[in-house]
Amino acid sequence: MRSPPGVGWVRIVSAGLGSQVEGGWIFVKVLVLNCGSSSLKYQLIDMSDETLLAKGLVERIGIHGSRIKHVKVGMDPVVKETDIPNHDVAVKLVIDALLDLHHGVLKDLSELSAAGHRVVHGGERFTSSVLVDQEVLKGIEEVIPLAPLHNPANLMGIKAVMNALPGLPNVAVFDTAFHQTMPPHAYMYGIPYEHYQVDRVRRYGFHGTSHFYVAHRVAQVMNRPVEQLKIVTCHLGNGSSITAVDGGKSVDTSLGYGTTEGILMGTRSGNLDPSVMIYLMEKYGDAKTVSDVVHKKSGVCGISGISSDMRDVEEAMEKGNERAKLAFDMLCYGIRKYIGAYAAAMGGLDAIVFTAGIGENSDLVREEVCKHLEFLGVKFDPSKNKVRGKEAELSAPDSRVKVFVIPTNEELVIARDTKELVLRG
Amino acid sequence: MRSPPGVGWVRIVSAGLGSQVEGGWIFVKVLVLNCGSSSLKYQLIDMSDETLLAKGLVERIGIHGSRIKHVKVGMDPVVKETDIPNHDVAVKLVIDALLDLHHGVLKDLSELSAAGHRVVHGGERFTSSVLVDQEVLKGIEEVIPLAPLHNPANLMGIKAVMNALPGLPNVAVFDTAFHQTMPPHAYMYGIPYEHYQVDRVRRYGFHGTSHFYVAHRVAQVMNRPVEQLKIVTCHLGNGSSITAVDGGKSVDTSLGYGTTEGILMGTRSGNLDPSVMIYLMEKYGDAKTVSDVVHKKSGVCGISGISSDMRDVEEAMEKGNERAKLAFDMLCYGIRKYIGAYAAAMGGLDAIVFTAGIGENSDLVREEVCKHLEFLGVKFDPSKNKVRGKEAELSAPDSRVKVFVIPTNEELVIARDTKELVLRG
Repeated sequence: MRSPPGVGWVRIVSAGLGSQVEGGWIFVKVLVLNCGSSSLKYQLIDMSDETLLAKGLVERIGIHGSRIKHVKVGMDPVVKETDIPNHDVAVKLVIDALLDLHHGVLKDLSELSAAGHRVVHGGERFTSSVLVDQEVLKGIEEVIPLAPLHNPANLMGIKAVMNALPGLPNVAVFDTAFHQTMPPHAYMYGIPYEHYQVDRVRRYGFHGTSHFYVAHRVAQVMNRPVEQLKIVTCHLGNGSSITAVDGGKSVDTSLGYGTTEGILMGTRSGNLDPSVMIYLMEKYGDAKTVSDVVHKKSGVCGISGISSDMRDVEEAMEKGNERAKLAFDMLCYGIRKYIGAYAAAMGGLDAIVFTAGIGENSDLVREEVCKHLEFLGVKFDPSKNKVRGKEAELSAPDSRVKVFVIPTNEELVIARDTKELVLRG
Repeated sequence: MRSPPGVGWVRIVSAGLGSQVEGGWIFVKVLVLNCGSSSLKYQLIDMSDETLLAKGLVERIGIHGSRIKHVKVGMDPVVKETDIPNHDVAVKLVIDALLDLHHGVLKDLSELSAAGHRVVHGGERFTSSVLVDQEVLKGIEEVIPLAPLHNPANLMGIKAVMNALPGLPNVAVFDTAFHQTMPPHAYMYGIPYEHYQVDRVRRYGFHGTSHFYVAHRVAQVMNRPVEQLKIVTCHLGNGSSITAVDGGKSVDTSLGYGTTEGILMGTRSGNLDPSVMIYLMEKYGDAKTVSDVVHKKSGVCGISGISSDMRDVEEAMEKGNERAKLAFDMLCYGIRKYIGAYAAAMGGLDAIVFTAGIGENSDLVREEVCKHLEFLGVKFDPSKNKVRGKEAELSAPDSRVKVFVIPTNEELVIARDTKELVLRG
């Protein structure tokens, strides 16, 4: 900690965030917001050259001990502990931080051209990003039953920006929108059809912005039109999903109606026999407890008994812990089976992409997944695999199926969509 | 109906069952039994040449309207309606039928060498077939919590044979045993580890006898040692499962802890997001109702709204019914994804086998599954696909991955295991 650079602010010493902001005429600056029920993440991006100017996090909104942590790119982070009773106050603090003389990045608010908001659930209505108006707000509200924890928070964020910055265009970017191209045989579940008709129970998929970004980015890196590629994108974080991207479009994805399906996650179960759910229901008696078990006590954490964090689990595994090894093996085996299944779904495979926390950082997971896929045309090069958090090709030059690490950038997609929709008007 | 061939028996005219019994010295005759709670299926097999001598079905045991239907191979079926209050009476009727002067196949009971029983669940204890003794009976009883509907009925059948034919060796053949070679990363679910430790919640798999039979049979047909082959076996009936058979051993299978996981079945859901199960729990309030929905009202029936029988659904689909088409597409897409996933699980694929009701008879399902698998090395030949219920190769001569129809024969596996264990002593 150093001396405060402004009233109430405390500078935190760190290794810094990256390169300094480059010069050039600022065409349009976009504020990107990702609101949770008690948190708000933000970035300010200069869309003239897509550089990040500042970012930060408001934590514990409405809870004792609330604070804002802000980083101007190239400077040490600063933090301010203050009472933040609601999202309106949170957004005002963000604006203050962006305008601050010391660690701000805006001279005045006229430099801000628009705000882009991450919205978790767009249901079947929102198949792409949209400019926010009253109709859109109503639409997001209507989808609340499908995302009761997330959509209300996302709405609070949008409304707080509308209150604080009247006249600023807002764009909503949906986590589900990219997956709306799935065909019915991929998105329907085998329960009575009425549940789809009445309650819209179907596969929606999540992390759509991330899957979209890495799929389109890998096509650029491969110097191939995305329309000609069959790609499996593996977004592996605390929550994880795998997507089949055929010709640039999502045709299947492992997260479904909610956020528990697919591969083993930090604390979420992934795929379960419906009979296992019936066992849990009989064991615990109520849906809420069962939901807690499969959302919060399962996955890598529940199997290893050690941690939901793969770094801890890999460390324990390397010391010989058998349940850590089991969690690791279950995760990698699950990913491998999805890659095979989605290759079959698309009738072929050109590239595998790893992204998000585990995907960008765990060379162990990537190697274990890829080393059994030679029959698909994957020639994995372990010597290229010691990479963390940056774009890299992991396959040999003569590998028919290419393997890449592509760090995800959901905020950039949100900013790009925001710019495009605002300019289009 | 013709005149009765013996007291109480009625002959039924039919197209007949197959070829006449061939001559030759009878080495050992085995009675194969498959007992449900209110039914009993049986076959008498001559193990000197593995020919079927007779078979039949006792229905509505303990229910008004009970009857036995018996077929001596080469003759018309006969049926007898009589009071059958329990499995003891049922087994006695089977013995009477086998000894009957007109439609019987045994001169006296000394010709009968052993009985082989299908037992649904062997838990983790029974990894292969066993000669039944008191310890085995206790073991089957201990597994009842894992198969509360099936194991008690299987036990009743064994005990009825022990009562009726004291001294006759009995062999238990388990539906789960073949899958006990799965590695932990394939059989564990991502819920807290304690559920495995305390309640043995894990993937068990079913239809093991069928998967074993068709995998080993296809190796014979291919004239290759099964130890060198990677095979995906698709047992597609009213209940369905898909198995990865690597080197003759099951390494993964789509049915799991219960009988609802995997692909779409007649009335069972197949894979569901755990969140969909939570939705159903909140909707219906109790585990029993949810269990009924996913076991009895889902699958092909719940999606199509027409029937649980694929023949009806295919007929409706061909007349343009969209929900029938959806059920068909979901089924075929599910199978296709499992084939891809299991190829990835095994790191390769040499053969795909279709068996059981749908697998042996639906050319539409087989074609839809295989036509998108060319990238795996499957060259499907539609001109070979118009086959029903008999062994056939469906792939082109230069197909790297072979595709076969192999009619299953679980009774023969039970009879073979029974003979082997009895002779071994």
